[in-house]
Amino acid sequence: MSDVAPILVAGQWRESKSGDTFRAENPVTQEPLPGAYPVSSWEDCDAALTAAAEAADQLLDVSPKRLQKFLLRLADLMEENRAAIGQLAHQESGLPEKRLAGREMERTTDQIRQAADAAADRSWKQISIETKRDLRSLFAAIGPVAIFSPNNFPLSWNTISGSDFASAVAAGNPVIAIANSAAPGTTKVLAELARQAAQEADLPAGTVQLLYRLNHADGERLVADARIGATAFTGSTAAGLALKGAADAAGKPIYVALSSVNPIVFLPNAIREQGEELINRYGNVCLKGTGQFCTQPGLAIVIDGEESRGMIAAIKAKFDESTPGTLGSKKTLDNLVAKLETLKQAGAKVISDESKPKGEGYSHPNTLLQVSGADFLQSAAALQTEAFGNAALFVVCQDVAEAKAVIDALHGQLAGCIYSSTDGADAEAYAVLAPRLRRKVGRFMDDKMPNGMPVSIGMGHGGPFPASGHPGFTSVGIPNAMRRFAVLQSYDQARHDHLPEELRNKNPSGQLWRNIDGEWTTGDIAEG
Amino acid sequence: MSDVAPILVAGQWRESKSGDTFRAENPVTQEPLPGAYPVSSWEDCDAALTAAAEAADQLLDVSPKRLQKFLLRLADLMEENRAAIGQLAHQESGLPEKRLAGREMERTTDQIRQAADAAADRSWKQISIETKRDLRSLFAAIGPVAIFSPNNFPLSWNTISGSDFASAVAAGNPVIAIANSAAPGTTKVLAELARQAAQEADLPAGTVQLLYRLNHADGERLVADARIGATAFTGSTAAGLALKGAADAAGKPIYVALSSVNPIVFLPNAIREQGEELINRYGNVCLKGTGQFCTQPGLAIVIDGEESRGMIAAIKAKFDESTPGTLGSKKTLDNLVAKLETLKQAGAKVISDESKPKGEGYSHPNTLLQVSGADFLQSAAALQTEAFGNAALFVVCQDVAEAKAVIDALHGQLAGCIYSSTDGADAEAYAVLAPRLRRKVGRFMDDKMPNGMPVSIGMGHGGPFPASGHPGFTSVGIPNAMRRFAVLQSYDQARHDHLPEELRNKNPSGQLWRNIDGEWTTGDIAEG
Repeated sequence: MSDVAPILVAGQWRESKSGDTFRAENPVTQEPLPGAYPVSSWEDCDAALTAAAEAADQLLDVSPKRLQKFLLRLADLMEENRAAIGQLAHQESGLPEKRLAGREMERTTDQIRQAADAAADRSWKQISIETKRDLRSLFAAIGPVAIFSPNNFPLSWNTISGSDFASAVAAGNPVIAIANSAAPGTTKVLAELARQAAQEADLPAGTVQLLYRLNHADGERLVADARIGATAFTGSTAAGLALKGAADAAGKPIYVALSSVNPIVFLPNAIREQGEELINRYGNVCLKGTGQFCTQPGLAIVIDGEESRGMIAAIKAKFDESTPGTLGSKKTLDNLVAKLETLKQAGAKVISDESKPKGEGYSHPNTLLQVSGADFLQSAAALQTEAFGNAALFVVCQDVAEAKAVIDALHGQLAGCIYSSTDGADAEAYAVLAPRLRRKVGRFMDDKMPNGMPVSIGMGHGGPFPASGHPGFTSVGIPNAMRRFAVLQSYDQARHDHLPEELRNKNPSGQLWRNIDGEWTTGDIAEG
Repeated sequence: MSDVAPILVAGQWRESKSGDTFRAENPVTQEPLPGAYPVSSWEDCDAALTAAAEAADQLLDVSPKRLQKFLLRLADLMEENRAAIGQLAHQESGLPEKRLAGREMERTTDQIRQAADAAADRSWKQISIETKRDLRSLFAAIGPVAIFSPNNFPLSWNTISGSDFASAVAAGNPVIAIANSAAPGTTKVLAELARQAAQEADLPAGTVQLLYRLNHADGERLVADARIGATAFTGSTAAGLALKGAADAAGKPIYVALSSVNPIVFLPNAIREQGEELINRYGNVCLKGTGQFCTQPGLAIVIDGEESRGMIAAIKAKFDESTPGTLGSKKTLDNLVAKLETLKQAGAKVISDESKPKGEGYSHPNTLLQVSGADFLQSAAALQTEAFGNAALFVVCQDVAEAKAVIDALHGQLAGCIYSSTDGADAEAYAVLAPRLRRKVGRFMDDKMPNGMPVSIGMGHGGPFPASGHPGFTSVGIPNAMRRFAVLQSYDQARHDHLPEELRNKNPSGQLWRNIDGEWTTGDIAEG
């Protein structure tokens, strides 16, 4: 038997039909990690699709309680294996093992448990009933969901344990997970736990399936396949656009998260008021985890003046003093170098010390850039390129009007923030800028860094393109993230005993919120 | 001054910058109608986009009450001009004037009034608040909406007065309406009324704009423009796919409704039980309005036997006896001829009498086709071609298993229906077929023809591709249809006085339903 890892298809670990393989690498030591993983051929994809389609049918008869049981058990199993998972994820990502086994694990299992409860309470179905003409609608499972994930949060965004996975399964869909190529080992361990949990909950065999990597053509074929319900993709713009093009052409929903620089505005009186604390917080959030998170506020907008000059100088010092962290892979490093080059070519100047030694493994000097508002407006598209990693760009504007123009020139972004003083001295500038920034972002913050991202009913992790592919959805937050993997199904004068339980006159749990004739209630419908 | 109609841009009727024009035609007399209309150039589009973007900004400060006032006034004005509108729409569509000025008008104004009330009550915003971590989200206006509409329902789907228009405006968006080329006169009159209503409600000048026709390249450029929020398109597959491709590539939401044959299953005992009544109802629904509605049940699935043979013979007689109606345009007729040819080439046999005289104007003999289940399965894609107009295809299956296979071979459809007997004799077949049909359609019916389509919170007019471009939305039904023209906006620890009114602790109307910590309530949030 070779050392090539098996794929998980139709509930069984089996050999890939493909002979092609890849290996992961430790980004700190730059050494290959043990074990080879298959690059699947279409034959593997086809087998997974067939099993997923069968599972989708079978899941129609699986109770919400069993989905809940599966997800709760998965969360428990992950925590039981916390140390081993943390260690493996650390080896594959270079991120601190303690954080992975600790906060990252807890965020992930909390997310899974929230999804478990949402599966059981069924509020995501958003039931709408008009009694007079007997029209009743609900959201229902969309069918097999393909998930492509990043590795900057090796657990909470993992293709097996992350938000896409939890919300797709909680909405009653089977998942075809495609591992991040940097994290095949972590993903395999999570899939083993998911398989065990699925067996204990007696879920259909094809509910959770795992492939490690696809070539581009097979990826595009997969997301456009008739058996697919929807796709979720978080990752590079080029790969995401290719998959989006294929899925769009086939009329298959695809939710992509491509890039975001998460603009953050520091108004002068906020800088004066919050001083060093603000500088520390911004410096930390830019460099934490080597800056590798999708809400890193990499584009800072300030008004030229004593306050902003002082802030930029202090941030530069912080960038120069801090030891650069390790990036998740060679690809991440290469991408950062290329994107910084794009920014420089477009007129941004590096103001941090480029001669500082790098950190361990795949690492790059902390890089702070600066550009004037006027120059930004000359090359706005290039200057909002996301340099994913430990880098940030200050845009120094002449005045509030120029800052407004800079914001108006932004593409869609995941998050945006304005720091303004509490004494009202920034109120006028805030009133000009906030409505402009609001429409560019999915999540808007006052006086807060965007890195914390609670899993909450009020969370919005999306925004206009290219932050996401459709600004009406969120990829984080239960139950709203589940709506991505749902279809709207209406029943027009169906016989009462033909209706799904949730739409019948009697409230199935006595606790399910339903909109009946425009009023939300947990009550029954009076029999006519 | 020429006889070329002016376009409505930025609140003014002005001459088009283009020299190119077209004329509409009366489909009954096949004579050109008075007046020429411009085929707009990009210059017109650009002016409309600029005005729409400005209006979108201004609409942020317009109260829901003013949007309500606008829509209510438009509905009143339409009814005041009922006779003139009915006459004009009749001339341009060939549909009965009485129906247009009567039921069609009432359906349209009811839809507009429902949208008006939804604008005011704001329930479409689907407010979600988590108090503990202070995360609050709502749906908000998406920005300028481009609307391309069909002319089979000249008022209720009109680009100015239809569901897309009413739901886009009610959600606070300006509209760039592109008239159906067969109905420029009706659309112009409706735009005059909308302009008057908008002025009376003091809406921004660019809230309602009208162009009559675009060339393909400009249409594709329009839907992909940075100033556009979203697009709604109902019409031909070729035009819709071209626009969808352009919008998708730019990351702009587009909602298309392309084609649907609306499968209807007649189980043997239902035919036996309902006999002549069922035959009359199905015959009528196929030929009413010359079969020109998007939910026409043009694909009938039956099990071979005495009952189905009797039914097909009776429907054939009905098709042969009934005088064919007029189709909406030469284009509609040409399309019907071409699509019938596709069906015939794929193996469907015409069983109605093709030698019968045609009706007035653009008309085609009522055409009933038949194919076996086995033959259908050989060419399933071609045999579910929508032959829009007075035509229908019976698929005669050997048994329930073959009928199941036929349903499984269908693409996504708007509506689907099963007639089963009330005595339980069809229950077994129903149990096999219903779950299969359910997942293919947006709206599912028992024992009901799909032509009536109430505007209701429980309505679903969508479904998997190509019935619609995204199965999570509906294009009919207030308030749910409004969600297409909305973005999800989250506020993460925003200062309380920076929040929109709907998200503040105090319920703004005392009647707005909000989901607070998982419970729906019209109450306030207790001050921490």
